[in-house]
Amino acid sequence: MQMSNRFPRTRRDVGGDLTRAHALLVQAGLIRQVSPGIWTLLPDGWKVLRNIHQIVFDMMESVGVQNVQLPILQSCDLWEQSGRWQKYIDTKTMFTTSEYHYDAEYGLAPTAEEVVSFTVAGEIESWRDLPVILHQIGPKFRDEIRPRLGLLRGREFYMSDAYSFDRDEEGMRASYQKMKELYPRIYERLGIHKLQAVEASSGDIGGKGSVEFMALNEEVGEDLLMACDECSYGANTEVSAGNVGDVCHECKIGTFKEVRGIEIGHVFQLQQTYSKSMRVTFRDENDTEQFAWMGCYGIGTSRLIQAIVDQNHDDDGIVWPESVAPMFAHIVPVNWKDETQRALAQELYAACQDANIRTMIDDREESAGLKFKDADLLGYPYRIVVGRDAGKGLVEVRNRKTGDVENLAKEHVVKWLKERAPQ
Amino acid sequence: MQMSNRFPRTRRDVGGDLTRAHALLVQAGLIRQVSPGIWTLLPDGWKVLRNIHQIVFDMMESVGVQNVQLPILQSCDLWEQSGRWQKYIDTKTMFTTSEYHYDAEYGLAPTAEEVVSFTVAGEIESWRDLPVILHQIGPKFRDEIRPRLGLLRGREFYMSDAYSFDRDEEGMRASYQKMKELYPRIYERLGIHKLQAVEASSGDIGGKGSVEFMALNEEVGEDLLMACDECSYGANTEVSAGNVGDVCHECKIGTFKEVRGIEIGHVFQLQQTYSKSMRVTFRDENDTEQFAWMGCYGIGTSRLIQAIVDQNHDDDGIVWPESVAPMFAHIVPVNWKDETQRALAQELYAACQDANIRTMIDDREESAGLKFKDADLLGYPYRIVVGRDAGKGLVEVRNRKTGDVENLAKEHVVKWLKERAPQ
Repeated sequence: MQMSNRFPRTRRDVGGDLTRAHALLVQAGLIRQVSPGIWTLLPDGWKVLRNIHQIVFDMMESVGVQNVQLPILQSCDLWEQSGRWQKYIDTKTMFTTSEYHYDAEYGLAPTAEEVVSFTVAGEIESWRDLPVILHQIGPKFRDEIRPRLGLLRGREFYMSDAYSFDRDEEGMRASYQKMKELYPRIYERLGIHKLQAVEASSGDIGGKGSVEFMALNEEVGEDLLMACDECSYGANTEVSAGNVGDVCHECKIGTFKEVRGIEIGHVFQLQQTYSKSMRVTFRDENDTEQFAWMGCYGIGTSRLIQAIVDQNHDDDGIVWPESVAPMFAHIVPVNWKDETQRALAQELYAACQDANIRTMIDDREESAGLKFKDADLLGYPYRIVVGRDAGKGLVEVRNRKTGDVENLAKEHVVKWLKERAPQ
Repeated sequence: MQMSNRFPRTRRDVGGDLTRAHALLVQAGLIRQVSPGIWTLLPDGWKVLRNIHQIVFDMMESVGVQNVQLPILQSCDLWEQSGRWQKYIDTKTMFTTSEYHYDAEYGLAPTAEEVVSFTVAGEIESWRDLPVILHQIGPKFRDEIRPRLGLLRGREFYMSDAYSFDRDEEGMRASYQKMKELYPRIYERLGIHKLQAVEASSGDIGGKGSVEFMALNEEVGEDLLMACDECSYGANTEVSAGNVGDVCHECKIGTFKEVRGIEIGHVFQLQQTYSKSMRVTFRDENDTEQFAWMGCYGIGTSRLIQAIVDQNHDDDGIVWPESVAPMFAHIVPVNWKDETQRALAQELYAACQDANIRTMIDDREESAGLKFKDADLLGYPYRIVVGRDAGKGLVEVRNRKTGDVENLAKEHVVKWLKERAPQ
């Protein structure tokens, strides 16, 4: 991609009282608000979300979870069967719509326990068909009374949601444990370095036993947590029995401190609540009809874009983790009017394209200072500066995160980048 | 993936009066209806859609189009600005929803001219910012009075939609031409071999000059077309001046015949209709404010799943084109209880997994006949049969499409598959 064609332009000043991560997403041109809590993801924002989704899909498949796509328009009939239609109407959290021609009512996916239960109920017959875990990623809708904080609290957002179906309580616990262990690995790959798993209450979803995953964030963390300063134990303040300074009742060594975080995931043991109301049954070894034991598992993927930037930036701009970076390399010719520099920059750009390395080239006739400022703001992992040594075929490669600089002969650049690029 | 874990089971008989492609999608377990015209994509269906989307995204980027994600909840205000709110309400084609707390009205994305115009209007300033083409893929919603034909006519479906913005009419024509030439290349890669581009009327979208892309289909083609039997000229019968047997007015050689097709794409020249109502303006070289010239471009991606199966199947089942196949290889041990066969099948399966080849292994204790039947139905490109030569380390590799069979030593299987796998 050429910087001169990049949509949109970067912005210096975004005004308003935005948090740092939110401001960076606007300045670097990743998101634009269309209506309160409703966003367009611009090219870099789109690519980061795609990368997040690909990593989540791959890691789900790596533990035997099967990916599907459930519908957004969910029939009122299904929600009445589970008893949640009126509840969601009363709390004014679900958007609803009507089919004109036959007056059918639909809710717009806030979550998918009903639809996935209906789908699984139609396919499983015997205990041999279990366990099964289905996972999807798609837009979700919640009628937030006060959308705010950029991608953190929106009316339309992306969520990864998985649902496990097991033969018995022991099976449900095993599926739950598998997902609970997978989540931190997903977050780590996405660049969430400060993570806290906390015991939580289950809210509207129902069931017993749930853990929230929080990206720690002192600036805008919406949730207050009690976390042990020694072991990994933590709890939502609604749940925790302890106070600041109390000795941790898990490890008996550390003491509780208060931290703030953004919820980026939640895993639940649903027991048989939905399988009973939605009649998700199977035949056991004795040919007796049984209700499945369910769990559900959610990751907020669009809010993760902002949580990742929050944990990966410096004073100059975003510092994308390589795993989710929208582009991998950023070629900056110091002086675009200099024929030697321009030719070398274009040669390297073509070579990167051929090697399938996502690369930006700054082809603008702007000052080097402005181009470096933009490169810092956009935060692609490796910057290739083509300057006065261009005539000797030498360029400078700079690591956005560490600031480390290496001088490389032009013929080594692609190989050097390839060795560092994510698979 | 193990066949014993695959969700869902295959089905022999699906009942009802389904078209062949629709029946195959249900039998092979790619789709399940949740409500009329509303579908769940099961794992194989999900993967085919993901593959289609990846190819479309990549090919869009290859011609300089930038990918974004526009919102589904589209404010009534934007649609009133374009004058289309009442029109879509009157024709009962748009699903709408209300925000509870502040009474804001939204339409559920049937298309996105308004939102993309709003987004671009906020970013472009001068003629230097043009041209730009933005593209997204996402769920779309249309309140079809009679949903039918599986994925062909649904209330919730996936569509790729692109929008071009140019400085003048000439620019618009160039962008339109670029997209019109890109589309057949996309369809070819997806396995649509029988394609007809036809002149069409523009319907509700507005503007002048539009071409529809039709996947020819004699069984369920919803549209009647007039096509020249010599040149590539064709026209929708609403538009065509000619009759069957008339000499083609383009090439003056061929004659018109009537064919049926499924619409899988549509490209429009929108002129300045939306840029005027939505005020998409820029400053030209003389610093005068001008309205942008727009085009829009759509591909029905979920209906393509069915159109591809329609053009790629035989009496035994689906024959997936390699580019979109949900799995690439299908390992079938003739007798799972035979230790030698089972060990070799598992060894090959592990090697395929390591080499990142999407592979199914049939680990069921079923008859070879039933396993072959399922493999034919599912239609993965290469079947690896592990049978009585397993002891000698030999397997049979069968091409699903051509039926060609080769005997390979086990150590050559992965390399052989890798050479044939899509990038």
